[in-house]
Amino acid sequence: MCELLAMSANVPTDICFSFSGLLQRGGRTGPHKDGWGITFYERNGCRTFKDPQPSFNSPIAHLVQDYPIQSCAVVSHIRQANRSKVALENTHPFTRELWGRNWTYAHNGQLKGYRQFKTGTFRPVGQTDSEYAFCWLLHQLSVKYPRTPSHWAAIFRYIAQLADQLRQKGVFNMLLSDGRFVMAYCSNNLCWITCRAPFGKATLLDQDVEIDFQQQTTPDDVVTVIATQPLTTNETWNKIAPGEFALFHFGERLVLG
Amino acid sequence: MCELLAMSANVPTDICFSFSGLLQRGGRTGPHKDGWGITFYERNGCRTFKDPQPSFNSPIAHLVQDYPIQSCAVVSHIRQANRSKVALENTHPFTRELWGRNWTYAHNGQLKGYRQFKTGTFRPVGQTDSEYAFCWLLHQLSVKYPRTPSHWAAIFRYIAQLADQLRQKGVFNMLLSDGRFVMAYCSNNLCWITCRAPFGKATLLDQDVEIDFQQQTTPDDVVTVIATQPLTTNETWNKIAPGEFALFHFGERLVLG
Repeated sequence: MCELLAMSANVPTDICFSFSGLLQRGGRTGPHKDGWGITFYERNGCRTFKDPQPSFNSPIAHLVQDYPIQSCAVVSHIRQANRSKVALENTHPFTRELWGRNWTYAHNGQLKGYRQFKTGTFRPVGQTDSEYAFCWLLHQLSVKYPRTPSHWAAIFRYIAQLADQLRQKGVFNMLLSDGRFVMAYCSNNLCWITCRAPFGKATLLDQDVEIDFQQQTTPDDVVTVIATQPLTTNETWNKIAPGEFALFHFGERLVLG
Repeated sequence: MCELLAMSANVPTDICFSFSGLLQRGGRTGPHKDGWGITFYERNGCRTFKDPQPSFNSPIAHLVQDYPIQSCAVVSHIRQANRSKVALENTHPFTRELWGRNWTYAHNGQLKGYRQFKTGTFRPVGQTDSEYAFCWLLHQLSVKYPRTPSHWAAIFRYIAQLADQLRQKGVFNMLLSDGRFVMAYCSNNLCWITCRAPFGKATLLDQDVEIDFQQQTTPDDVVTVIATQPLTTNETWNKIAPGEFALFHFGERLVLG
């Protein structure tokens, strides 16, 4: 199993708070020691830091902790290799362009019998079931919407339908973002919490650290964090039901009619 | 004008040597202060570090200097913004998947009248002429070779023909790699040098630093460095003629018949 983490915010926010808890679990307090990655969006651009090394002793992970990167959308993943070899090309998140935007994806779970799905011109670079499923998703989207679509609710409903098909092949917890929207599709473990200014103190699960959001933010800030398991103990997290998804747009949850 | 740097090697090699010279020019001794990026290949995977900040004071650039990443193919770029805004999505190198491989590209120069070229399903994310040209190149390649091609000499000859068309629109110095091949197409400024073990000492152009390659390498090592201008003063660099290209495969130059 892998650990997923995402953030959606209405102002550029530093995710170091939550990421440091995840790093602790990447090899020290959890079994997730085979690579990690994190993608930060900055407007339409994004940058990914990834390392096939365990996260808790990775120099790049510590840079990410020490050097605050302000972002409105973040997707992160810590991987325990299942079947595919530990290699950079198998390390999440994966980013591909569609409709002139960078789409970033991370998957937790295992799929079987997925190769009957055709990926078209989106060819996997690595060997993971995860990247294969991502390529299939993008291919299906590009076939249904060859031109850049404008009706976003329809797109995410369609993505959820595609995710339903993948869930029939195994466990498929997914994070997906284009830098504006962050979608979390749940197969068995995904939860989220929306924090609004004024923020209270939050206690990290893996370290005796408290971070006071109020020092970092303005009165209108909204920050949503999505994770495999709750990262904090003093707040109530919302669990996403199996086969359902939650969609966020700059921090706010969108409920599709 | 921007600075280009690439490396091609037959064993995973640490590029810090050459990159530190480039960093010095990124804002301190040269006018290139509007962002930089570097892509390291590790087998089929690659990772990119990029920053819209000037390179000489970028924490990420210093991480890249301090933390050796062993790679057989590297592409790097320091940008001075011409017309497009300084933003992450306009920062080179650009990486896209084609034929199940990651293709990484960096451009130096300016193009005009290039929007008559159609980019098909490879849509630019940012606003640069550079990324636009890259999308057009990939689109042309995907049209000519819808299936993964096997005849690499023909592919790179075709890429050179496409680059010739782009050069008619302005200045087009290009670096392109899929992790195995590194291609350098010259419009006005690109040169290369191939170093073979045993390596002599090399002096960086911008710092009083000598690095002894012999401490880092084995007797069969071959390392080629490609750069806008020679990075060292005590070695003879080969200048690529305008409209010509040099192609390298794990350090060795390939001369196409």
